Amino acid sequence: MRVEDIRSPEQIKSMSVKELREFATDIREFLIRSISQTGGHLSSNLGIVELTLAMHYVFDSPTDKMIFDVGHQSYVHKILTGRAHKFATLRKKNGLSGFQKRKESEHDCWEAGHSSTSLSAGLGMAIARDLKGEHYEVISVIGDGALTGGMALEALNDIGALHKKMIIIFNDNAMSISKNHGAVEKRITNLRSSPLYRTVKKDVKTNLNHSKTGLNVLNSLTHIRDSLKENLVKAPLFKEFGLDYLGPVDGHDIKALIKVLETAKEHDGPIVVHVVTKKGKGYPFAEQDKLGKWHGVSPFDPKTGQSLIKLCTDELSWSEVISKTLIRLAFKHPEIVAITPAMANGSKLLEFARLFPDRFFDCGIAEEHAMTMAAGMAQGGLHPFLSIYSSFLQRAYDQINHDVARMDLPVVIGIDRAGLVGDDGATHQGVFDIAFLRSIPNLILSQPKDAKEAQNLLYTAFMTNAPFCIRYPRGTIPYQKNEEFERIKIGSWTCHIVGMPETILITYGPDVDRIIQKAKENSIGLMVVNARFFKPLDTKLLDTLIKEKLPIIIYETDIKAGGLSSAILEFMSKYDERIKIIGIGDHFVDHGSIRILRKEEGIDMESVFKELEHYEHAPRSSSDRSL
Amino acid sequence: MRVEDIRSPEQIKSMSVKELREFATDIREFLIRSISQTGGHLSSNLGIVELTLAMHYVFDSPTDKMIFDVGHQSYVHKILTGRAHKFATLRKKNGLSGFQKRKESEHDCWEAGHSSTSLSAGLGMAIARDLKGEHYEVISVIGDGALTGGMALEALNDIGALHKKMIIIFNDNAMSISKNHGAVEKRITNLRSSPLYRTVKKDVKTNLNHSKTGLNVLNSLTHIRDSLKENLVKAPLFKEFGLDYLGPVDGHDIKALIKVLETAKEHDGPIVVHVVTKKGKGYPFAEQDKLGKWHGVSPFDPKTGQSLIKLCTDELSWSEVISKTLIRLAFKHPEIVAITPAMANGSKLLEFARLFPDRFFDCGIAEEHAMTMAAGMAQGGLHPFLSIYSSFLQRAYDQINHDVARMDLPVVIGIDRAGLVGDDGATHQGVFDIAFLRSIPNLILSQPKDAKEAQNLLYTAFMTNAPFCIRYPRGTIPYQKNEEFERIKIGSWTCHIVGMPETILITYGPDVDRIIQKAKENSIGLMVVNARFFKPLDTKLLDTLIKEKLPIIIYETDIKAGGLSSAILEFMSKYDERIKIIGIGDHFVDHGSIRILRKEEGIDMESVFKELEHYEHAPRSSSDRSL
Repeated sequence: MRVEDIRSPEQIKSMSVKELREFATDIREFLIRSISQTGGHLSSNLGIVELTLAMHYVFDSPTDKMIFDVGHQSYVHKILTGRAHKFATLRKKNGLSGFQKRKESEHDCWEAGHSSTSLSAGLGMAIARDLKGEHYEVISVIGDGALTGGMALEALNDIGALHKKMIIIFNDNAMSISKNHGAVEKRITNLRSSPLYRTVKKDVKTNLNHSKTGLNVLNSLTHIRDSLKENLVKAPLFKEFGLDYLGPVDGHDIKALIKVLETAKEHDGPIVVHVVTKKGKGYPFAEQDKLGKWHGVSPFDPKTGQSLIKLCTDELSWSEVISKTLIRLAFKHPEIVAITPAMANGSKLLEFARLFPDRFFDCGIAEEHAMTMAAGMAQGGLHPFLSIYSSFLQRAYDQINHDVARMDLPVVIGIDRAGLVGDDGATHQGVFDIAFLRSIPNLILSQPKDAKEAQNLLYTAFMTNAPFCIRYPRGTIPYQKNEEFERIKIGSWTCHIVGMPETILITYGPDVDRIIQKAKENSIGLMVVNARFFKPLDTKLLDTLIKEKLPIIIYETDIKAGGLSSAILEFMSKYDERIKIIGIGDHFVDHGSIRILRKEEGIDMESVFKELEHYEHAPRSSSDRSL
Repeated sequence: MRVEDIRSPEQIKSMSVKELREFATDIREFLIRSISQTGGHLSSNLGIVELTLAMHYVFDSPTDKMIFDVGHQSYVHKILTGRAHKFATLRKKNGLSGFQKRKESEHDCWEAGHSSTSLSAGLGMAIARDLKGEHYEVISVIGDGALTGGMALEALNDIGALHKKMIIIFNDNAMSISKNHGAVEKRITNLRSSPLYRTVKKDVKTNLNHSKTGLNVLNSLTHIRDSLKENLVKAPLFKEFGLDYLGPVDGHDIKALIKVLETAKEHDGPIVVHVVTKKGKGYPFAEQDKLGKWHGVSPFDPKTGQSLIKLCTDELSWSEVISKTLIRLAFKHPEIVAITPAMANGSKLLEFARLFPDRFFDCGIAEEHAMTMAAGMAQGGLHPFLSIYSSFLQRAYDQINHDVARMDLPVVIGIDRAGLVGDDGATHQGVFDIAFLRSIPNLILSQPKDAKEAQNLLYTAFMTNAPFCIRYPRGTIPYQKNEEFERIKIGSWTCHIVGMPETILITYGPDVDRIIQKAKENSIGLMVVNARFFKPLDTKLLDTLIKEKLPIIIYETDIKAGGLSSAILEFMSKYDERIKIIGIGDHFVDHGSIRILRKEEGIDMESVFKELEHYEHAPRSSSDRSL
C-alpha cells in the first residue's frame, strides 16, 4: 500500500510485523520527500514512526484518545489517519496544520503548539471518561524536553494522586529541541544506558501479566541482578510521583512496542511507558544533528541536506542582530548573562554560549523559572538577558508581572518571534504580548524598526536600571554593525516626513521603513511615526501630532485589542471633554485597607461624585465631535 | 529581653539553647497577641519560630540571603530583624507588609506573595554570587504546598543541574493552605512517619562531616537498618533532582535545627534540609485546624479563638454566593465539576466537595495544570468550573489563552478576589485580569453587580458553550436565593436612570448599586450603566449612549490601562473620523505564510496604502473635536 493511500488506521491493523516494518520505511521516505518540499518538523517525526504505527495498531482512534505533546511530532499520526495525500499543503494557508488540529480530523482530540500540556489534558479526559461512565483509552505522548516544563510536573503529581487509568508514553529521544538540560535528564541518561535495557524489554510482558503495579512487576523480575533492578526502581521521576512504569523499550522495534502497549492497555491506573527513540532516525543529516537544526526545517535538497531558501548575504535574522549585539556588550560588561528556555539555536545564542559558557544558562523548557531566576540574578547584581519567543512568554506572564516588574528589577527581555510567525499557526503567533504587557507598571516595552535601532535599543536596555523588553519579529533584515552605540531616550518616538504630509501614520517595527520607502516611490505626502516604545508612549510627540489636525492612521501588526492603538486612544482621551476615566493608574498598589486604598487611588464614591459634581455644574458638552 | 526590643539578629547569637527556647515561647505569645489585634497570617508563623531562630543563629543576615517562599511566614524573621515594635501596623497602609518587602528592611532580599518562586530566586542569586566572586549563603525556605507549583519543580531540576551552593529548607508542615495534595505529598508522608526520624537527626551531624554528598552520608549510616535507609535514599523528590538531602529534623528542636543548618552551611553544592514543623504550634485552636481557617485570620479573641469581626447575617461573601449557586446547578447538571488550585476554603468550595466528592478536584498549588486539565475535561464532555483568585490567574495566562480560549472550550472560570484585596498588598491585588484577558479571542468576561446577577451569570455561563469568566471581588453582599434562574444575553449591559440624567456613568460590580443609591440620596440626575460584560461589550447600547450627547464617566476599580475604558475607547474610535486603526481583529490567526496571512488580516502594505489613498482624496478632517 502506498503511504498516500492510507485512509484509516484500520488499514494497518491487518499488517504483519514485517509489513509494518516495511511500511515504516515507506513512511520515512514519504516524510523526507514531503518535508523537503514544504518545510516542517522533520527530526521528531522521523523518530516516532514505529511508535505511532504501534499506537494505531494497538489502540482504536478516534475512540481512544491520542494526545501528542506540542503536536509537531504528529505527522505520522496524520498519515495513518488518512491525511498523507494532503501533505503538499502542510503549514500552508487552509492546508494541513503542523500540529494536531481538531477541525482537521476526528482523530485529533486535542491541539497544542506549546509544550507540556498533554498530561493535564489527558488527565482531564480520563476524569471525564470515568465520570461519564464511558470506556476508552487516553494516551499522552510526551518527550523528554517537555517533561522539564513545570505544568507537566504539576500534572504528574496530580495523576499520581488521582490514579485514573491513562497511558503516558514517555518519548525519550535524548535530544529535545535544545540539548536537554537538568537533573531529570541526568537520571534519564543513566537509565537509558543501563544494560538492563534489552533484558527487561523481553521480559516485561510476561511478568506484568502477573501483577498490577509496576513496582511489583519489577520486584518479580528476580532473575535480574539487583543493581540493575534498583536502576529501574528509580525510574526517572515517575516512581516519585507514584506512577507505574514500563520500559525502557526500543522505540524502533515495532514488535516490542506493540507488546508493551498491549501490556499498558491492560493495566489499571496510570502507567508510564518509557520508549527510547532516535530523533531524525533514518535520515543521516538529521540523525547526526546535535544542535537541533533539523528540528524545524525550510525546504531542502534531500540528497545534500542543503536548504533551498536563499538568504540575502547582507541580511541577518533579528535574533542574530540581537545576539551579535549582546556579545559585543557582554565583552564590556561582565554582569551581562544570557538565559534561554531551551531555545539556544532558535534564539541564535549558541555563539554567546561558546564565548561565555559560564554566563550562559539554558534552563530547559521552563519559562516561569527562567523569568524568576532572571529576577533573582538581577537582585544579585547581574544584568540578565532573557531571550524568549513572544508566544512562550505567555507562560511567564505572572513572573514578569509579580517578580520582575513589581520589584522593578533590571532584566532585559528579548521577545523573539513577535508578531505573526506564519507557518506554525495560531499557537505560535506572537501577537498578544503588547496587549498583555502594556498594563504592567514599571515595564519598558519597545520594538526597533531596523538593525541599527535594535543595537541601540539593546544598548539602552543595559544602560537602564529597569525591566526592559525589546520585541522583534521572525525574519531577516539588512545588518551593519553600529560603530558607536547611541542611547535612546526611553519613550521617544521618531518622525519621518515624506513630501507634504496629508496623513500621520503611526506604526512600529520593520514596516516603518517599508512604508516610508513606498510612500516615496508613490509620492504620497506622509508623516510616518516610528512608535518604538509601546510603554511609555511618547506623550510629548503625541500632543504635537494631535495639534497637527491631520488624519491619524495607527497601523499595528499585532492584535488590535489592548495594543498600541488602544494605548494611544487612552492617552488622547484626555482631549475629549466628553469622556472622563477614573481608575487605578500605572503603578502597583501596596497594602492597606480597601477603603483607604480606594480613597488614595481616587476610586471611591467620594471621588466619583466629586467628578459628577463637576459635570453637573458644567454646561453640556460643547464638543461637536461627530458622534 | 522583650520581643519588642530586638533590633538586630546579632542579639540572639549570644543566647544559649535554653534561652533561645524561652525566647521562642515569648515570640509565640507576641505573635498571638499581636495578630489577634491586627489580623494576619498566624499558623504558618507559629510553625516556623524555632526554625527562624536557628536560621538567624547560624547565618548572618543581611549578608546571607534568606528567601521565604510566598513570604507570609516571615513574621518571625521580621521580629528578629528589628521590626517587632512595628507589628501594630501590620498590613495597614504605610505599615509593615505581611510579606517580605525590600524597602522595609535590608534583611528582606526578595519579595513574593505568590507561591513557589523562592527556588528560582535563590538559584539566580547563587549564580550571581559565584559569577561576581562574592561569598554568602543563599537560603530558600519552601513549604510542602509550594513544592507542588510547577515553577518550583522547574527550579529544582535546574538547581540539580547547575549544582551551585545553596540551601533549600523544606518546611514540611504537613498542612499547606489547603490540605496538601498529590503524589509528592504521599511520599513525604511516608518519610515523615518513618521511625528513622529521631535516629537520623542525632547522627546526621557526625556523619556528614566525613563526606561531601548527602548520598554518601546516608550510605555511611551503616548502623541504621537497611529498610529505613532506603526510605531516606528515596527522600521525597529531591534525590530525583540530584540534590543532597538532610533530615527530616524536628522543626521545633532548636538544638537539632542549629546542628543541621551548620552542617548544611559546610556543604558544597545545593542541599535540602527537611524540617518537619507543626503549623499553629503553641496555639491549640490553630494546631487543631484541619481546614486552613487559621492560615490567614481577622482580629480575634485569643482566649476563645472567636473572630472579632461581626458579619451582617443577611450577607454572604461573593465566593459563597457563587459556590451556593454552583451547588444548585451541580445537582441538576451532572457534567458540572469544580476545580481549585489549593483554595478550597478561600473559594468556599468545601461544601461542594462534601456534596460531590467525585466531582471536586483540588490539584494543589498548580494553576497552570488546573486550567489545562479543565480544558481536557471540557473536551471530554464535562463542564468544569475553575475557581481561581485573580492574581493567581496570572499564573495560567498561557493556559487560558492557548488551551481554553484558542480551542473555544466550555470552561467556566470564577475569578475570585478581583479588584483591590487590601491587606495582602501588591502581590495579591486582582487588578490586572481585565487588561490581560480582554485581548484573548473567544473569551467571555463578566462581572455581576449583585448576588442576583451573580446567580444568573453563573447559570448563563453553564448554558453557554464557550469559555466564560465571571469575576467577583473580596467582601460580602446581601444575598437572597433566586427563585428562578434567568439567562442573561451575552454582552448585554443594563441602564439605570436616576432623575433627569445629566451624565452617563459606566461602571461595574457592586459599585453600580452604591452609585445609584447615592445619586438618589443626593438627587443627582444620572444614567448608571452596569457594564457587566467586559468582553463582548454591549455595542448596541454604546451606540445609543454615544448619541445621547451626555458626558460619559467611565469608572473602573481596576488598572486603567487596557481595562474597560480602553475597550470602550477602542469601540468609540469608529466614530472619530480622524482616527483609523489597522490591526489584527478579535480572532486567532491560523497557519499560512506571513505574506498571505497579512493580506488576509488586512495588515499588509497594500491595505495600508489603500487606506492612505482614501484619506488623500478625502477633505481634511472636518471634525472640530477639541484636540
